[in-house]
Amino acid sequence: MTAPFRIAIAGLGTVGAGVIKILQNHGALITVRAGRPIEIVAVSARDRDKDRGVDLAGYEWVDDSAALAEVPAVNAVVELIGGSDGVAKELAENSLGKGVSFVTANKALLAHHGYELAQLAEDHEASLMYEAAVAGGIPIIKAIREGFAGNTIQAVYGILNGTCNYILTEMRETGRDFNDVLKEAQEKGYAEADPAFDIEGTDAAHKLAILRALCFGVRPDFDSLQVTGVTHISAQDIKFAQEFGYRIKLLGIARRMKDGIMHVVEPCFVPLDSMMAAVEDVYNGVFVEGDFVGTGLSVGRGAGEGPTASAVVSDLIDLARGLKVLPFGVSTSQMKDTDISDIQNTKSCFYMRLTVMDKPGVMADVSSVMRDHNVSMETVVQRGDESDQPVSIAMMMHESMRGDIEKAAAAVENLEAVIDAPCLLRVERF
Amino acid sequence: MTAPFRIAIAGLGTVGAGVIKILQNHGALITVRAGRPIEIVAVSARDRDKDRGVDLAGYEWVDDSAALAEVPAVNAVVELIGGSDGVAKELAENSLGKGVSFVTANKALLAHHGYELAQLAEDHEASLMYEAAVAGGIPIIKAIREGFAGNTIQAVYGILNGTCNYILTEMRETGRDFNDVLKEAQEKGYAEADPAFDIEGTDAAHKLAILRALCFGVRPDFDSLQVTGVTHISAQDIKFAQEFGYRIKLLGIARRMKDGIMHVVEPCFVPLDSMMAAVEDVYNGVFVEGDFVGTGLSVGRGAGEGPTASAVVSDLIDLARGLKVLPFGVSTSQMKDTDISDIQNTKSCFYMRLTVMDKPGVMADVSSVMRDHNVSMETVVQRGDESDQPVSIAMMMHESMRGDIEKAAAAVENLEAVIDAPCLLRVERF
Repeated sequence: MTAPFRIAIAGLGTVGAGVIKILQNHGALITVRAGRPIEIVAVSARDRDKDRGVDLAGYEWVDDSAALAEVPAVNAVVELIGGSDGVAKELAENSLGKGVSFVTANKALLAHHGYELAQLAEDHEASLMYEAAVAGGIPIIKAIREGFAGNTIQAVYGILNGTCNYILTEMRETGRDFNDVLKEAQEKGYAEADPAFDIEGTDAAHKLAILRALCFGVRPDFDSLQVTGVTHISAQDIKFAQEFGYRIKLLGIARRMKDGIMHVVEPCFVPLDSMMAAVEDVYNGVFVEGDFVGTGLSVGRGAGEGPTASAVVSDLIDLARGLKVLPFGVSTSQMKDTDISDIQNTKSCFYMRLTVMDKPGVMADVSSVMRDHNVSMETVVQRGDESDQPVSIAMMMHESMRGDIEKAAAAVENLEAVIDAPCLLRVERF
Repeated sequence: MTAPFRIAIAGLGTVGAGVIKILQNHGALITVRAGRPIEIVAVSARDRDKDRGVDLAGYEWVDDSAALAEVPAVNAVVELIGGSDGVAKELAENSLGKGVSFVTANKALLAHHGYELAQLAEDHEASLMYEAAVAGGIPIIKAIREGFAGNTIQAVYGILNGTCNYILTEMRETGRDFNDVLKEAQEKGYAEADPAFDIEGTDAAHKLAILRALCFGVRPDFDSLQVTGVTHISAQDIKFAQEFGYRIKLLGIARRMKDGIMHVVEPCFVPLDSMMAAVEDVYNGVFVEGDFVGTGLSVGRGAGEGPTASAVVSDLIDLARGLKVLPFGVSTSQMKDTDISDIQNTKSCFYMRLTVMDKPGVMADVSSVMRDHNVSMETVVQRGDESDQPVSIAMMMHESMRGDIEKAAAAVENLEAVIDAPCLLRVERF
């Protein structure tokens, strides 16, 4: 029997407890698969006395999580604390700096400091593994880093946040409003008490920054990402989308363009009969386009104890088997900053919904604004018939420059009869 | 620069030429990703003079493919000849027996001799890699062997043959008959001149035998597989399926049951709104159910030059990077034969179509046969109204034992008014 692979775990929330459960329940199976036992030697978390539903008796308790890398003869440190800085970052630096491999589910850490940590890993011949950071139930990091390694990747895009996808699916199925469904999602544990990271698109953006780096061999670049969440999507938008033959999905998209790599996180209209539309509830779905392999899609649960812990354990088994692969698949010396493609110059079809006071001449005013901005309307639907109440106007536009239609939306908002900001959503075709 | 990873390629058909194209076109990219160049040193095929659209000038030509493993200092042999025995098997044995890693797209070879070859690889510390053998465009071997390695796998199932999926999709979209569409598929290069391996389900069965071995840690067992192809599916069946809310897909299914592992390849009714139904044309789709990760789906092109060659190259990059993983993820000493679950004892809903002479009493006779075999009908539709012409009767059955309904189908066939064998298809729900 080869020597056990010794690990220390920082952070014993849902995912941490899940990792311990898998290692305890599947000990024999994992030993057979890894060729050696994976042995937890130390754990660390904020509260030592909390009941986590797993037996911690055999493991050394370390109060200071950042010091876990100091535990003697540890082969890998597992970080499940979260947060782009603070203890998580300190622990990453301590571990990798000592040549101890580091396994994490922390997308914020990778999106902000992935390049520096990859350098540290490379310099100290340690591994930095993060399968759990993006779409836990889908081994997408491995697929891109290894499975599609013979391809130039043209694009990576998909549904990267299960909370938003659950909310949008539920809104569609029940006709209820955003806040109502969000509240229920929080009660069910599908959304955090503070849901901002999810519903404002930040979580999806962290993941996209990582996927983009991996697919295109560039440094993770979170700051230049244009991010729009789903908080402005109303029950009406969902209904209009259905009527026009679409569903609304929060997408993260990174695509090689002539002038650089485009990347954006935003809710989009996707065709009802597309596979993207069929990825519903808490599921994530990631598409990758390679020049030889063509287009592939992977669908799975994006978050939650089981899928995320499963991804962490797969990284541990890889390490125990002796896998050595650079964090982003190439040496950091090869990872360059790249031009960001100007999204304003891309052409798409768009949906725009306005809330207006139903006065004579409104449609004429709206139409003039569109015409003045080179935007031409394909279909217009008006809803609402109680007199003196605002009505909704939903428009599907012919293909327009994004810069033009954004200016048109801003100009329409200034019209006297228009109440509220227009809801502008791009149509994504595949 | 680390020393080049030296390979020899046997078989220069579409996939072989594709591998050479990728390695030639993406040489710099692959060197960066693999950390060293992948260098073709020798090639072999039947006909030296054929133009394959790639420049072979720099490579040693070896007439006897089985002797490729003798080329000095070769790190891996790539076998793209095909066939479960003969030269392909000889070359596999020669290579692995010398400790030279072996990369193949040969599903027949793996389905029939995978266990012995894995033993040989293990004994000689060589790698046996076969990502291209199952659903080329989907890194499903890697996903199961590594990505889901922390899970007990409950089931693996999916659309494993692109040719059949293309034919069934085309039949549905155009209303044309099987033979008509097959002919077109052959003209387009989607089906072989001799299509038997595809349309009779053998190709899908080879792949299922491999997936089953990998998922459940058992020896590949092709011979006990029950295989039904798609040649008996008529345009009428496709139409009836649609009418009842289903599509017909050729599925390979392996599932852990109480009495062993069930495995079967057969065309099934799948619900219209399922993701399985959305996997169309030449695409493959593979579902994996793990106890922690939940259910995941991967979709991609199953065959063709680009996807298959991409999979071969991904194996080569893995090897060049130094990946060492056992062929089926566990030592062959751990791979046991296992009980085959008796499929006759499983309960499912079924579709049955009969062609009958429209005489009084036919339905009464059919109903009696069903009743006598404990099969109860849920919906019955009769089509055809020209007098003296045979009519079609399509029935959706309530859940029945498979053994019962198969006996009922055999008994119905004996009725005087029944022309042709009944078409019996199981309903698969997910």
